[in-house]
Amino acid sequence: MRILIVNPNTTEALTSLMVETGRVAAAPDTELIGLTARRGFPYISGRAEAQIAGAIALEMLAEAHAGADGAIIAAYGDPGLHGARAMFEIPVVGVSEAAMLTACMLGDRFAIVTFAPALAAWYRDCVAIHGLVQRCAGIVAIEQSFSSIVDVQDDNLDALVALANWTITDKGADVMIFAGAPLSGLASKARSRIPAPIVEPIAAAVKQVEALVALRPRKAATGSAARPAAKASVGLPPSLAAYLANADA
Amino acid sequence: MRILIVNPNTTEALTSLMVETGRVAAAPDTELIGLTARRGFPYISGRAEAQIAGAIALEMLAEAHAGADGAIIAAYGDPGLHGARAMFEIPVVGVSEAAMLTACMLGDRFAIVTFAPALAAWYRDCVAIHGLVQRCAGIVAIEQSFSSIVDVQDDNLDALVALANWTITDKGADVMIFAGAPLSGLASKARSRIPAPIVEPIAAAVKQVEALVALRPRKAATGSAARPAAKASVGLPPSLAAYLANADA
Amino acid sequence: MRILIVNPNTTEALTSLMVETGRVAAAPDTELIGLTARRGFPYISGRAEAQIAGAIALEMLAEAHAGADGAIIAAYGDPGLHGARAMFEIPVVGVSEAAMLTACMLGDRFAIVTFAPALAAWYRDCVAIHGLVQRCAGIVAIEQSFSSIVDVQDDNLDALVALANWTITDKGADVMIFAGAPLSGLASKARSRIPAPIVEPIAAAVKQVEALVALRPRKAATGSAARPAAKASVGLPPSLAAYLANADA
Amino acid sequence: MRILIVNPNTTEALTSLMVETGRVAAAPDTELIGLTARRGFPYISGRAEAQIAGAIALEMLAEAHAGADGAIIAAYGDPGLHGARAMFEIPVVGVSEAAMLTACMLGDRFAIVTFAPALAAWYRDCVAIHGLVQRCAGIVAIEQSFSSIVDVQDDNLDALVALANWTITDKGADVMIFAGAPLSGLASKARSRIPAPIVEPIAAAVKQVEALVALRPRKAATGSAARPAAKASVGLPPSLAAYLANADA
Amino acid sequence: MRILIVNPNTTEALTSLMVETGRVAAAPDTELIGLTARRGFPYISGRAEAQIAGAIALEMLAEAHAGADGAIIAAYGDPGLHGARAMFEIPVVGVSEAAMLTACMLGDRFAIVTFAPALAAWYRDCVAIHGLVQRCAGIVAIEQSFSSIVDVQDDNLDALVALANWTITDKGADVMIFAGAPLSGLASKARSRIPAPIVEPIAAAVKQVEALVALRPRKAATGSAARPAAKASVGLPPSLAAYLANADA
Amino acid sequence: MRILIVNPNTTEALTSLMVETGRVAAAPDTELIGLTARRGFPYISGRAEAQIAGAIALEMLAEAHAGADGAIIAAYGDPGLHGARAMFEIPVVGVSEAAMLTACMLGDRFAIVTFAPALAAWYRDCVAIHGLVQRCAGIVAIEQSFSSIVDVQDDNLDALVALANWTITDKGADVMIFAGAPLSGLASKARSRIPAPIVEPIAAAVKQVEALVALRPRKAATGSAARPAAKASVGLPPSLAAYLANADA
Repeated sequence: MRILIVNPNTTEALTSLMVETGRVAAAPDTELIGLTARRGFPYISGRAEAQIAGAIALEMLAEAHAGADGAIIAAYGDPGLHGARAMFEIPVVGVSEAAMLTACMLGDRFAIVTFAPALAAWYRDCVAIHGLVQRCAGIVAIEQSFSSIVDVQDDNLDALVALANWTITDKGADVMIFAGAPLSGLASKARSRIPAPIVEPIAAAVKQVEALVALRPRKAATGSAARPAAKASVGLPPSLAAYLANADA
Repeated sequence: MRILIVNPNTTEALTSLMVETGRVAAAPDTELIGLTARRGFPYISGRAEAQIAGAIALEMLAEAHAGADGAIIAAYGDPGLHGARAMFEIPVVGVSEAAMLTACMLGDRFAIVTFAPALAAWYRDCVAIHGLVQRCAGIVAIEQSFSSIVDVQDDNLDALVALANWTITDKGADVMIFAGAPLSGLASKARSRIPAPIVEPIAAAVKQVEALVALRPRKAATGSAARPAAKASVGLPPSLAAYLANADA
Repeated sequence: MRILIVNPNTTEALTSLMVETGRVAAAPDTELIGLTARRGFPYISGRAEAQIAGAIALEMLAEAHAGADGAIIAAYGDPGLHGARAMFEIPVVGVSEAAMLTACMLGDRFAIVTFAPALAAWYRDCVAIHGLVQRCAGIVAIEQSFSSIVDVQDDNLDALVALANWTITDKGADVMIFAGAPLSGLASKARSRIPAPIVEPIAAAVKQVEALVALRPRKAATGSAARPAAKASVGLPPSLAAYLANADA
Repeated sequence: MRILIVNPNTTEALTSLMVETGRVAAAPDTELIGLTARRGFPYISGRAEAQIAGAIALEMLAEAHAGADGAIIAAYGDPGLHGARAMFEIPVVGVSEAAMLTACMLGDRFAIVTFAPALAAWYRDCVAIHGLVQRCAGIVAIEQSFSSIVDVQDDNLDALVALANWTITDKGADVMIFAGAPLSGLASKARSRIPAPIVEPIAAAVKQVEALVALRPRKAATGSAARPAAKASVGLPPSLAAYLANADA
Repeated sequence: MRILIVNPNTTEALTSLMVETGRVAAAPDTELIGLTARRGFPYISGRAEAQIAGAIALEMLAEAHAGADGAIIAAYGDPGLHGARAMFEIPVVGVSEAAMLTACMLGDRFAIVTFAPALAAWYRDCVAIHGLVQRCAGIVAIEQSFSSIVDVQDDNLDALVALANWTITDKGADVMIFAGAPLSGLASKARSRIPAPIVEPIAAAVKQVEALVALRPRKAATGSAARPAAKASVGLPPSLAAYLANADA
Repeated sequence: MRILIVNPNTTEALTSLMVETGRVAAAPDTELIGLTARRGFPYISGRAEAQIAGAIALEMLAEAHAGADGAIIAAYGDPGLHGARAMFEIPVVGVSEAAMLTACMLGDRFAIVTFAPALAAWYRDCVAIHGLVQRCAGIVAIEQSFSSIVDVQDDNLDALVALANWTITDKGADVMIFAGAPLSGLASKARSRIPAPIVEPIAAAVKQVEALVALRPRKAATGSAARPAAKASVGLPPSLAAYLANADA
């Protein structure tokens, strides 16, 4: 099974980190193919950037989807997810969506812990869009600084663990999600220091795509996940334009 | 990986049907072990029976959980699920919970189609308890009769398909769930007749337990999914009483 | 009027305490009949135990309902309530349901104050199932220990009062509910120390059953509160099995 | 026990009808005292009139509350309820509030059936203000005409019954409420023709006030139901002005 | 364009303050006409008083609406708004409604900051009635005292600013609303001390009425905002009675 | 006042139609400047296209915002709105947001009527993101075909009017919104045929931007609407990249 890990950002180190973290939980015959955006931002910090990166995710999928069995939008906040789900024949899952739905099977309410306050409003949108407000105990962020985006989790491990534990005692969180690609792999490091189950988002996403591929549901031919009618466009990247222009492609 | 399919009803034919249906989607190394209740009802039709069958599910798990890697509460409505999740160390997933969460990755809103109006209020509770009201386009039931519980899906295939299609056109459903153990396996039969993806509940549950086992989250030590403190009891089945009496067992 | 106070736990002292507390508010011609479970737990601490105790409540009612005018599920969290409401011809009210609905007539939002954090997730379910989330200012628990379940309220009176007052100042609670059978009778002790009205749950339940009996609504013949169709069973207590087997009994 | 039935409309026949209907369910020692507005409208048909009639209800209570044990705002939609609850020391219950809360103990979801479409938006507000949207299966109105407000129920019995039955089959209603003072007493006439329990609003209100009086909760000294601070006014009816001017009166 | 600023309280200084504050944002050709209640309270502090003042607002509009192009209910909590909107042909907007809807275009969630805790429950109603709970980060009040109602904002500027800033850091508020007529004009004074946009309620209301007048939507002839059918009354102020008596007036 | 009407589609005729429709309601000194996307789609039909067009809207604003006083995202569904609101110093309003918020002041619940079923899921997202689900009576679409996107409203006037009237009688809608740029100007044509007020979306958006400009709230320096920190990028259009790279630009 070939699963695309679509990182709509330009930082290859984050793609590698996610592929590596996802591999730990993947089935033996699952091949994870990391894709890093060739244009866009080193990291998405909010809704404006997510708007742009979501469009880039669609470009990346238009180019790479052939031959894949499923795909993951590998940026927390799931930029471009609903569009991708509708456009492509293969299952597409968002890393935050997968983390939250998986968390729902481990306890009543999950907390989302992240590393920058600016991410909060965007993640709040994400919880709301997925209809999971009732299952969310809170969305919290440390305020510490960090030396570089790839060092965030090591620079701030203690603060992240402390904040996670605070959501348990003060917000009644039952399950923990460390959100944001730079926190990939943190679940295993924090495991012994937090008394609640922790969902590793990219690993959860890999398992959820594997599940959808195994279940083999038909592609929606109607409704919100159906492929849009063929449409002409101007000035879009060629693969994307070609795919959108031909509903049968 | 050994997964228990805990059917809290007494009809072995339904257990077999679920094991067989689940096997189609299971990983090669997954062993599905069907358990049929030795006491209780041939089939659960509502909340009173679910109250009783949920307690029976806990008895069954107390007896059989050792050596298993995960378990499925294999009756729609998930009787006993939250209790089981808290009590046992292994992941426990409900068949309706798994179907709904899986459906969330295939479209905005799922419909639940079942075979008896009496099931509706109970399933509505189930959607609400899982916090998924916003994702549910409707819960509907045919009113036809059937010769026996195991023949329900064949006796009523056309009516079920028609009702499912009605939820698409009239309720805006994007994804379909045929709910109730007797409808296990219906997804593949109806696939060509319904333009939306259909989630096969027991198959989805197998994949979700496999996912949780692969992710290896720690058992909750606090919160709503933590194991209850040891407690004495009177008059409960011996395995259940022993398990509850010793928090370290 | 004969009202059953069905304590689905095995501690007779709690049954007595509830009967006695309920009597203060009962009408002159109301007879309160306390029933203590012959099997189960000395006290229910969460969802697993409530699953089992709820089934026991149905057994108790199957045995004792004849000749009664109404019944109260006398354990906070209302284990077995919806099943009992459907199964029996007489009105059945839950002690938490009655407390919350009564509180709604005394102010905008009630707080639920209890004596063990483990009860919180279960009580949260209870508020949600009754559709009263919007009316609930918070569910809080002291963390103190206690010498025995019947001494909880005396051992912790000051802490419970302080916590209740905190829900007023910090959560905007307008009405107070001390939840849990062991806190029966606390309302009168705390009355002078809390500036909000306090609802005594078992007393509220007695009044609500009296109200339903006086109003004499017909038994539902359809919908979520209708009696389930007759159903065979195996291995259930004889009274319960017989009642379930014969819809006309 | 002296309970005021405060009809904030000017039609004495409706007051009489409500007193008479309430008496059937009242306790032997309960005295129901009907009060009819001396100014205002013969009947309230919407929010503008309810705004005015709610203020009149406060005037009526300021004049009549002394010596009473409790009061009912006896117009569906509960005009003036929250103000009255805060202002007076005695328990005050709204007839729609009482009907809905009582209905909650008889099934999952109630329908509200009334006799004029113009009432719907106002009643929808009422359900929302009481936080009971989740418990409401629908608010529906017949469109027939009627010869006079007191003849509404007899002129339209068949249509009202048919509409009520439609809410059961099409909206999943479990319990029925016929709303509006002119429909007082309809519950008993329709009982044999509707397969769901019917709550008689004024009777439910009588029982709920009796319950609150028996429970003897203290008056709120803080929060949304606390008595407002003393306040001067100009041009209000003397009893009302005097009461508001003196917080200790 | 002639816009009525209907202050349903008797304090002319507040009317003047609101007219003056509204004028800053008004279009050049907008004439703001302040109306002060001739009966009622110097200031509304809660739901009881709002019930009465809302009826007074309708009296004031019945008398003054002729020749006006639009009107503002100029007391926070919008007493009488829905009745007024239905009764009159001209657009009527509430000052709190306008503030909240305008705030929605400046950020995800607004906070409401006011000067007396007693106002909170009433304002909470107001947010709920307008269906904006999801957009509201919190409703908070200072507890300081003040020398007179018109001096509230100057006596408490620092405390109000501090509380507003707290809703940003602790509640995630994005936009600020200082609520209550006595706080009119505070937005500009606090502008440099709060890092979020502040909506000046009366100014927002002026702009919203101007917008509605410019858009020229037809008056509703059906539904919740349609003019009530003509109705006789007794004992109401003559202008109000006459207007209500004649649907064509 | 210079207001940009940012049409993120490539059809100039729709831009012209919107500018012309908006002009009718604009203030005398308001200049409406229509901008048509130079790349993208002739018309957006769903979420995939909105993802891309939203990014294009940000490009257009990055290029054109200097010298403008405010801007409108002039495609129903508000693609790119939240990103634009955060990025730019000038007020930015979405045409659907403005229509819905304005509709809230004309009645309890609005209906959204559009011309293609595929738009429904996307518009449903839009209502949810703005937190206005409770105010929305329904989202409906005709299923007729049309000769070209600019002829939609003339080809289908009768069907659109009939559907709008159906939402009034069957869904309880109080206010009407015809959604989609191709329906601009329909409000005035349908006015005499629908008994509810109709909001013209682009006209409402013009008035709302005018209102925000007149109110002069400060730009958020914190929270969900604050400008993102400066960020480098690769491969984005130069104006957009430059703007994002320099938080002080």
